[in-house]
Amino acid sequence: MKSKTVYKYLGKVLIGFSITFIFPMIVSIVYHEHIYPFLIPLIITLLLGIILNYTFKKRSNLYAKEGFIIVALSWIMISILSAIPYMLNYHLSFFDAFFESASGLSTTGASILTNVEELDKSLLFWRSFTHFLGGMGVLAFVMAIIPLSKKDKSMHLLKAEMPGPSVAKLVPSLKKTLLYLYGIYIGLTLTEFILLLIGKTPIFDSILISFGTAGTGGFSLLNSSLATYTNFSKWIVAIFMLLFGVNFNIYFLLLIRDFKNALKSEELRTYIIIYLIATSFIVLNTYKMFDNLNEAILSGAFHISSFMTSTGYSIGDVNIYPSSCRILVLLLMLVSACAGSTCGGFKMSRLIICFKKIKRDLTKLIHPNMVKEITFEGKRVDDDTINSTTSFLLLYVVFLILIMFIISFDPLNLNLSEIVNATFTTFANVGLCFDITNFHAFSDLSKFVLSIGMLLGRLELFPLIVLITNINKS
Amino acid sequence: MKSKTVYKYLGKVLIGFSITFIFPMIVSIVYHEHIYPFLIPLIITLLLGIILNYTFKKRSNLYAKEGFIIVALSWIMISILSAIPYMLNYHLSFFDAFFESASGLSTTGASILTNVEELDKSLLFWRSFTHFLGGMGVLAFVMAIIPLSKKDKSMHLLKAEMPGPSVAKLVPSLKKTLLYLYGIYIGLTLTEFILLLIGKTPIFDSILISFGTAGTGGFSLLNSSLATYTNFSKWIVAIFMLLFGVNFNIYFLLLIRDFKNALKSEELRTYIIIYLIATSFIVLNTYKMFDNLNEAILSGAFHISSFMTSTGYSIGDVNIYPSSCRILVLLLMLVSACAGSTCGGFKMSRLIICFKKIKRDLTKLIHPNMVKEITFEGKRVDDDTINSTTSFLLLYVVFLILIMFIISFDPLNLNLSEIVNATFTTFANVGLCFDITNFHAFSDLSKFVLSIGMLLGRLELFPLIVLITNINKS
Repeated sequence: MKSKTVYKYLGKVLIGFSITFIFPMIVSIVYHEHIYPFLIPLIITLLLGIILNYTFKKRSNLYAKEGFIIVALSWIMISILSAIPYMLNYHLSFFDAFFESASGLSTTGASILTNVEELDKSLLFWRSFTHFLGGMGVLAFVMAIIPLSKKDKSMHLLKAEMPGPSVAKLVPSLKKTLLYLYGIYIGLTLTEFILLLIGKTPIFDSILISFGTAGTGGFSLLNSSLATYTNFSKWIVAIFMLLFGVNFNIYFLLLIRDFKNALKSEELRTYIIIYLIATSFIVLNTYKMFDNLNEAILSGAFHISSFMTSTGYSIGDVNIYPSSCRILVLLLMLVSACAGSTCGGFKMSRLIICFKKIKRDLTKLIHPNMVKEITFEGKRVDDDTINSTTSFLLLYVVFLILIMFIISFDPLNLNLSEIVNATFTTFANVGLCFDITNFHAFSDLSKFVLSIGMLLGRLELFPLIVLITNINKS
Repeated sequence: MKSKTVYKYLGKVLIGFSITFIFPMIVSIVYHEHIYPFLIPLIITLLLGIILNYTFKKRSNLYAKEGFIIVALSWIMISILSAIPYMLNYHLSFFDAFFESASGLSTTGASILTNVEELDKSLLFWRSFTHFLGGMGVLAFVMAIIPLSKKDKSMHLLKAEMPGPSVAKLVPSLKKTLLYLYGIYIGLTLTEFILLLIGKTPIFDSILISFGTAGTGGFSLLNSSLATYTNFSKWIVAIFMLLFGVNFNIYFLLLIRDFKNALKSEELRTYIIIYLIATSFIVLNTYKMFDNLNEAILSGAFHISSFMTSTGYSIGDVNIYPSSCRILVLLLMLVSACAGSTCGGFKMSRLIICFKKIKRDLTKLIHPNMVKEITFEGKRVDDDTINSTTSFLLLYVVFLILIMFIISFDPLNLNLSEIVNATFTTFANVGLCFDITNFHAFSDLSKFVLSIGMLLGRLELFPLIVLITNINKS
């Protein structure tokens, strides 16, 4: 790497992140459990952060490339450090712990644990808390900590975190925008928590489920996921998963009472329409397997919300789905929900832009002289955005194939369906899929590749690619 | 449709195509079989052609849109008319016959027949002959028959048939180009035929296998495909499949002794490198299942050649392949070989351009001010070509998903792997795949959708899309 400045920033991020270990420590005190599985990583993270921060000097200019590298390194380092509690408290191997940690922070929710109910409360808390932390992105930490001397610098970092083309600049200062977004995030989480309590969910469960919903993660504290809670609570979670799939800019528009622009959003409308069509399709194709229509509707509405927002909670066995429903779900996983949300996948906005591009190019083929501009959310989309959107999509497919290819070597001798499901559910940060309930039996290589896949998917490929290509150069 | 001129051209195409039924009639006379299964469609095709040709008037201008529609209508009509012999001689239902006919003309080679060995010689001949006809495209007929008053007109038609971006204009007249390509096609087929005879393959078998290789089709006259022939013949077929996967422009360059340009081809080099890597990979992963290394190499070289060129011949059970090999093969099916060949798939050249585009966009993301041009075969690729290439790829995926979704409703209740294999092998015009040996048990809806899929894949989507969108408008 050309510049060592990135290490200084990484140090700052780690110092900030070390604070997060205090929360599970409080839980361990409340429940009379061991504190050291969290205290040790706290100290390591803090020391590492201080060393990096004070060893390396700050340079005035920060380029896009370095922004990407800071994001990538932060996520990798934090995933490794967050794995320590699993190793100390539950004696997981490094690869297992890293998988669980990456799954938590990337808000995937895929697990290598076969029995989560035997976990300590503090570790359960940590597991779900990483969803909450990952949700708005470790980048939010990065943004809050790194002093914003120039706007352009920070945009590079944000670009890496939320490259969805629709992230509008709503307030002049990026720091303020992030504070607003953070406020909305915590506000929604609190609302869900209270509603879950009303739905007779125990306090501890309500906290953890709210964390998992907010980050669109999906780790739960019971082996049966959310199957045993009240129908009211299930509906609350279904609705809140859907709400966390909405572009957060929409909430900001609602907050400033700009209802007109909020409801005009093409992405929001497409999201809702696809959700309703998909849910109807699932209900139509599965209602015969339920005792009554209400249960079928709840199950369909819940699971499509869960799959589409890449959360991964479940309230029953999705393996009852026939092939047509499975294909639909796999597609919804990849597409996911809106840009500017905590969801995985390649986002509704990108899909819309790609379809508009295909339509434009088809028209051009028939009417070569017709010049048609692509608009999205009422604004013209420039060629650079279209190019990077299609390149992202193609690259997304390339990585999906690469991961599938590597895990096809797993000694488990997985069949094509298992390979597709395992890859899609991790890469799109979903966590729930067909045929596979957990990743316990996978080889260490597969676990590691899938862990990297979760981070790649979460960071939308580019930061990690920049990191890897720069490692070769240095 | 705006203009009725297309029907006049369709009439001319049908008049030309009616002649092809004479060949299986000769075979039926030689083997003392019924002539009427070929005489009846000959008369119907000829009459229909004459009626269309004389009813509709010619207009002076022919637009791209109409060019696409002529191509699409010709392929659909010819597929229907070519299905008649299967119905009359072997009493297949319409959907079965249409599947077999579309599979033949689209040079796919997927079959609904469970025992091809009980077919009449004349019908076997017809089956393989449709590969040969489909190979260079019914369009070649169209080009030979439609008088070329303006070059631009015909280019629109050719655009629909061979949209590979690398189809260079080698000779000034399009008619002459086609004659040259035709000459090369027949020359290669004859060479293979003679070499197969030397390899102790019976004459009738040699003719049919050569037809199937030339069109990269894959229909064979034995249930065991080519498993029972001599190793020499197997190698001949393996090599000729590979040769038919090369861009025909390369052969033209070789003919005019322009060796420098011929060997400089990026596409050719990529094709050969990928072929060698894939074959080595397959041999490495399967050699333990064979008696000796020679057999393993023959099997690997043969099947990769068969899959990659979308031919679909086999010399043994490919179901022995482990998951990693299967994924590789599925990818090779989709990519296929060179543009300007008789192969299916989305072609090597498009893949190269897409990778270059991804690389350019990634570079641009890191160095926003760097302007980098994409070159292919030593020439700059313009934005329109890049756009239509990516749109084609995206559309290709959309159609794959659509077909998979529809056949997931098949009462057979296919699993994901079967759905993927059935869709890929037909859409990419391969015909051979894992788990599925024939399509006999599929529902009529699935058969029809897969038949349309074969034609869509063969015509590279656009002509059929133009036809469908114009039906709605008229």
